[in-house]
Amino acid sequence: MSLIRYNEAKFESFILSEIPQLPEPEQQVNWYNLTGLADVELFEKFCNRFGVHPLLQEDMLNTSQRPKIETFEGHLFITLKMLFISPEGHIESEHVSFVLGENYLLSFQERPKDLFDPIRKRMEDNGGFVRKKGADYLLYLLLDVIVDHYFLITDSIADRIENLEDEINSKPRNNHSESIQLIRNDLLMLRKLVSPVRDMMGVFTRKQCILIKEDTSPFFFDLSDHVYHLSELIETYRDMNTGLKDLYMNSISLQTNKVIQTLTVVTVIFIPLSFLVGLYGMNFDNMPELHDPNGYFILLGVMVVIVTGMLVLFKKRRWL
Amino acid sequence: MSLIRYNEAKFESFILSEIPQLPEPEQQVNWYNLTGLADVELFEKFCNRFGVHPLLQEDMLNTSQRPKIETFEGHLFITLKMLFISPEGHIESEHVSFVLGENYLLSFQERPKDLFDPIRKRMEDNGGFVRKKGADYLLYLLLDVIVDHYFLITDSIADRIENLEDEINSKPRNNHSESIQLIRNDLLMLRKLVSPVRDMMGVFTRKQCILIKEDTSPFFFDLSDHVYHLSELIETYRDMNTGLKDLYMNSISLQTNKVIQTLTVVTVIFIPLSFLVGLYGMNFDNMPELHDPNGYFILLGVMVVIVTGMLVLFKKRRWL
Amino acid sequence: MSLIRYNEAKFESFILSEIPQLPEPEQQVNWYNLTGLADVELFEKFCNRFGVHPLLQEDMLNTSQRPKIETFEGHLFITLKMLFISPEGHIESEHVSFVLGENYLLSFQERPKDLFDPIRKRMEDNGGFVRKKGADYLLYLLLDVIVDHYFLITDSIADRIENLEDEINSKPRNNHSESIQLIRNDLLMLRKLVSPVRDMMGVFTRKQCILIKEDTSPFFFDLSDHVYHLSELIETYRDMNTGLKDLYMNSISLQTNKVIQTLTVVTVIFIPLSFLVGLYGMNFDNMPELHDPNGYFILLGVMVVIVTGMLVLFKKRRWL
Amino acid sequence: MSLIRYNEAKFESFILSEIPQLPEPEQQVNWYNLTGLADVELFEKFCNRFGVHPLLQEDMLNTSQRPKIETFEGHLFITLKMLFISPEGHIESEHVSFVLGENYLLSFQERPKDLFDPIRKRMEDNGGFVRKKGADYLLYLLLDVIVDHYFLITDSIADRIENLEDEINSKPRNNHSESIQLIRNDLLMLRKLVSPVRDMMGVFTRKQCILIKEDTSPFFFDLSDHVYHLSELIETYRDMNTGLKDLYMNSISLQTNKVIQTLTVVTVIFIPLSFLVGLYGMNFDNMPELHDPNGYFILLGVMVVIVTGMLVLFKKRRWL
Amino acid sequence: MSLIRYNEAKFESFILSEIPQLPEPEQQVNWYNLTGLADVELFEKFCNRFGVHPLLQEDMLNTSQRPKIETFEGHLFITLKMLFISPEGHIESEHVSFVLGENYLLSFQERPKDLFDPIRKRMEDNGGFVRKKGADYLLYLLLDVIVDHYFLITDSIADRIENLEDEINSKPRNNHSESIQLIRNDLLMLRKLVSPVRDMMGVFTRKQCILIKEDTSPFFFDLSDHVYHLSELIETYRDMNTGLKDLYMNSISLQTNKVIQTLTVVTVIFIPLSFLVGLYGMNFDNMPELHDPNGYFILLGVMVVIVTGMLVLFKKRRWL
Repeated sequence: MSLIRYNEAKFESFILSEIPQLPEPEQQVNWYNLTGLADVELFEKFCNRFGVHPLLQEDMLNTSQRPKIETFEGHLFITLKMLFISPEGHIESEHVSFVLGENYLLSFQERPKDLFDPIRKRMEDNGGFVRKKGADYLLYLLLDVIVDHYFLITDSIADRIENLEDEINSKPRNNHSESIQLIRNDLLMLRKLVSPVRDMMGVFTRKQCILIKEDTSPFFFDLSDHVYHLSELIETYRDMNTGLKDLYMNSISLQTNKVIQTLTVVTVIFIPLSFLVGLYGMNFDNMPELHDPNGYFILLGVMVVIVTGMLVLFKKRRWL
Repeated sequence: MSLIRYNEAKFESFILSEIPQLPEPEQQVNWYNLTGLADVELFEKFCNRFGVHPLLQEDMLNTSQRPKIETFEGHLFITLKMLFISPEGHIESEHVSFVLGENYLLSFQERPKDLFDPIRKRMEDNGGFVRKKGADYLLYLLLDVIVDHYFLITDSIADRIENLEDEINSKPRNNHSESIQLIRNDLLMLRKLVSPVRDMMGVFTRKQCILIKEDTSPFFFDLSDHVYHLSELIETYRDMNTGLKDLYMNSISLQTNKVIQTLTVVTVIFIPLSFLVGLYGMNFDNMPELHDPNGYFILLGVMVVIVTGMLVLFKKRRWL
Repeated sequence: MSLIRYNEAKFESFILSEIPQLPEPEQQVNWYNLTGLADVELFEKFCNRFGVHPLLQEDMLNTSQRPKIETFEGHLFITLKMLFISPEGHIESEHVSFVLGENYLLSFQERPKDLFDPIRKRMEDNGGFVRKKGADYLLYLLLDVIVDHYFLITDSIADRIENLEDEINSKPRNNHSESIQLIRNDLLMLRKLVSPVRDMMGVFTRKQCILIKEDTSPFFFDLSDHVYHLSELIETYRDMNTGLKDLYMNSISLQTNKVIQTLTVVTVIFIPLSFLVGLYGMNFDNMPELHDPNGYFILLGVMVVIVTGMLVLFKKRRWL
Repeated sequence: MSLIRYNEAKFESFILSEIPQLPEPEQQVNWYNLTGLADVELFEKFCNRFGVHPLLQEDMLNTSQRPKIETFEGHLFITLKMLFISPEGHIESEHVSFVLGENYLLSFQERPKDLFDPIRKRMEDNGGFVRKKGADYLLYLLLDVIVDHYFLITDSIADRIENLEDEINSKPRNNHSESIQLIRNDLLMLRKLVSPVRDMMGVFTRKQCILIKEDTSPFFFDLSDHVYHLSELIETYRDMNTGLKDLYMNSISLQTNKVIQTLTVVTVIFIPLSFLVGLYGMNFDNMPELHDPNGYFILLGVMVVIVTGMLVLFKKRRWL
Repeated sequence: MSLIRYNEAKFESFILSEIPQLPEPEQQVNWYNLTGLADVELFEKFCNRFGVHPLLQEDMLNTSQRPKIETFEGHLFITLKMLFISPEGHIESEHVSFVLGENYLLSFQERPKDLFDPIRKRMEDNGGFVRKKGADYLLYLLLDVIVDHYFLITDSIADRIENLEDEINSKPRNNHSESIQLIRNDLLMLRKLVSPVRDMMGVFTRKQCILIKEDTSPFFFDLSDHVYHLSELIETYRDMNTGLKDLYMNSISLQTNKVIQTLTVVTVIFIPLSFLVGLYGMNFDNMPELHDPNGYFILLGVMVVIVTGMLVLFKKRRWL
């Protein structure tokens, strides 16, 4: 549990060991950050101190909660997911919640992550712009960092789609099919997380909440714009992935087609020849051709003619 | 037919053998539960006592009725489906209806099921929170239990999709196609039941009904949120199931492709060899090669060269 | 042309041979039913007597008219389709129109059908409820009968889908493809007829029409509910039919795959054997193996080894 | 350039050789028809005389202009496409524009076409109904003729779809694939032209334009109804065409399947026989069977047994 | 950095080397054009001079910014993409931004491009219409040029689709699959850029912005119309491209089918013949047929009969 208290002039950072008192309504912004949702009792005490509704507390603890925003008795409550790419390339999500009050912001994280560190840093260093604004601007900064991280995920998916497209064009393999399905599922998961965030933005841009001040509003408009862009990107990648599936199926069909052509050409050329040599391998007593001294050579000639004819025919049908 | 009557102080449970009088407007919540819709006469008397419109009575009895909500002369009428997974893994549904009045709630079930037992238990044990609230909160509790059960169904479908995906990636079989179709139909059925429930939620969240009190409203918002989540999950699983179908079709195509490659490689290698051995099995009188003492061994050498050449070619075409 | 005139006390039924006078505004409901649209002149006279707009007359006569509802100078005009299943299993439609006035209802049918007979019967027998209500309730009764008949159609389609699914799972055949296309076209046709009926319902439920009285309104709400359900059913069956198509395509692919596997296994086993027996069928003077007394038996042994090896390999590749 | 001037009593038709004066506001409808947009100068003078905005003039001349409706300074401007089926069966379009003023209508056509002739005729003959109404009713008549012609196009597409369906069911060919793509493109083109016309109808039905008088309004409602119907037909045909594509793909797959079955059956039967006859064609010194006097006949018997067994097997697998 | 200052009477063009003063509110339009966004410091100074909000400055510099429109403290801010076709046929995009003030327009381009030159030219030459209007009309002119360029892109895509369709109908190849995927991705990219531009148009047509004067409004309506048309074209081409994919897949399937038919016909004809000649190549001591003097010729006759029979059969099955 940590507390950062700042205004334009001051910047103080505390580590809290017990539930803090409600901040006095002075001209300072108080940012309480609670990491790790395991100690439920502490969590509940903390929330009750700030008057957070029990249903919201439940939503914060429930890590499978869908992203949502709610305004409740002087609070603005937001819960959403942070997304990371794990070292193995998987997409990992972390449940994060915010409660915005008049002069304070509560943030709740599952695990200690350094995502918000640059913001803390920037606040400490930069006395000016960032610290001049209120808790609503701080909320914007934190949401902006989270949304910017979403773009890392879409970028990585874009890379995977592009690589896969190149590979399929060179040679389709079975695991390509699995890769396409994996990308599909990742995009579905991403869409499930992003689409409620997009809806959430309406609360800011339609100025439904008095906790968001007039001069912070443009920043939330900008954020909303990013989320819309993200949402469009996801749909575009979904379409591209569907295209990839078609590309892959076509590649397999065409490859099958080529293999069958080869089989057909070779079989169709040799089967009549095999018949002919079989014909003159028969043991009938009376087969005049066999006793012709040039019979063998004539047959060889006939076979050359047949092969040539076939090749010309295949050339014309463009099977070679 | 059972009656549970409670307020913050008291909790009474009765088994009713005859149609009850209308509850007096005292500070108590009356929950009438009618199980089994077979005795239509009893049912009608019961409904008429509470002034339920004949059309609504029809909807309660009609088990193929689509989930719906209606406000009628001081009543809020809700009908929806409870869903269970049968021991054999099938999805089973049960028709359930509620009629909410000022200080009473009527519930109608097809069969006696223990779904609502935990709530009865909780009420009996816990004098505090649950019994402090009115009949609208009781309705919320019952609906919440039903909606939570829907998530069991989606979870089981998620498991089936995941298992199927693993199996298809290892070896596609015919019954996979049937399994995909089964999941598809289950999801369609689920969507048909859930989408009217989602629409139903608007009546609560848009505060169209005066029977839902102001302080119960957040709970219905929360419920609405769950139903939206459910609805999104269903769409996501439908998309994943479509992906599964593509995966399966691709697997079959690729498998066919491999089988044909094997056929082609073996045929293309042996067909020219068979021709050659056939050639020297002919019985022409004049075939000089046959009388060469090394003829046989030269031919064997030629055949080794041909096979080697073919294998190199196939290697290059990546058919091996 | 027939006239049924009733109120709570009386019920009279007439066969009209000439254009009737406008009914006097007494406390009776007059239901004029005109069957057969062939006699256009009679039809026009009849309509003009009731002041029906020429454009509406045109719509009633035009049997390819899309279902529609219109309010015109004190009339409510409705045209829609009755659907029947012909004895051969085809879906047949009949154009039917209604004109609702203050105390009368005109109904126009293409052919005499007994669809409305049960209603006539019910009216004659039952003095009470049905005859107590006005012409708007009569309209509801007639529309309800028509919509209930739509469910017969969807039920028959559901049966066809289920049967087809079973058949495809046992053995796919060519005409399955045609059956799927037939169901698709039937569903498209049905949707084309039902979706304007659904839109039509809004006129009743949004109380746009003063001819529909307050106490009949719940019945139209109920009807609207049925039509929505119908509309959802159609979409669900369309989805199931698409699933059927995928199932069928997968079945064919898998069947092809199996046939090719059989071909490959047999060919790959016998082609090397055929080569070997061809090899020792050659007529070279100098082939030492031929003169080995055990040569033949050694070769038989070699061939057994080859076949066994192949079978093991195919077993491992799961082609057997 | 032609002018038709009429009221209930009179009907006059002129061929204009120069730009006309603005018609005086008397009780007559003036219909100016300009054919051929090649003479741009004349066109501009004409438009300027009636005060048509330069941007609208541009839209009239631009034959790739999307259908649109606009109200501008006392004018109602409409541009849309007339569609014809050329003698070769192609769909041809012609750009046509209307400008509706208080007591006049301007119509602009690319080429002289006889589409409007029946209307002229009807006006000349029929003193009554048609000439009683104003310029807005004339506009309705002209639009109605154009929309009715659209139905000819959809009818011809319906025929093509039906024919194709029959042909595919009898025997799929390559050009069917092209035909399906042609129908698809035709329907796309049609939709592109019809959907703005449908949107256009809202201007009439929502009574946004004072130039459309109250008593003409029902006619435009009727027209709007036709366009909606058209729009639905197009979507239905698109769906049916997609179904056709599936039907065709399934047909090819099934045909391939059958061909491969034939190949497999014949190959699998003869390959073991060929091996056997090859076996006894070998030249080993010591092959006891060869010297058995009944060897040949025993072998023939064995082969009959093998073939019979195979046929039974294939029968069971339903490959025959 | 360049400045063009004009009114109906005057036209002046300057190259600016330093940040200009704010233009005085006289009756002149000032068009500042800044090319190259590399010199960020200069850019910021320039923007600050005109009071452009820092967030907007960021959007102008961020070349991956989604097209958007915003009204901010007396400014109308627009950012969108110019699209070009590179000499190699690729689609290239350039980020361009506009800031509209009361009597000035700022335009920002990434690279110097001659897209706006014709407008400069037209202004210089033509004293009349163009220079009579305000900065809002100038904005319209510039946007119109950009949107017109979008049509060049869609036209080029239409050509590619048409060519591809012809090629696929003559002979499908592997790279067709890639071409289809390329067109798909290009259309997705285009849609991503055009759809926000379409939404943007609403600001102009719904007259939300007081900087757009009443008499310029028709021009923006016209522009909006173009963008809608564009948007429809893109959807139509996407549909056509999907059709192309189906066409291609069908072509491959049919081609495979034909190859397999050839293989089957040849194999099925020759395999029984090969068996027969093998049969009489056996070395059994007792094979009566071999010693018949006409045996050979009888066999040849039998084989001719077999081949003829097969050909008739194949003819009937339409495999030839």
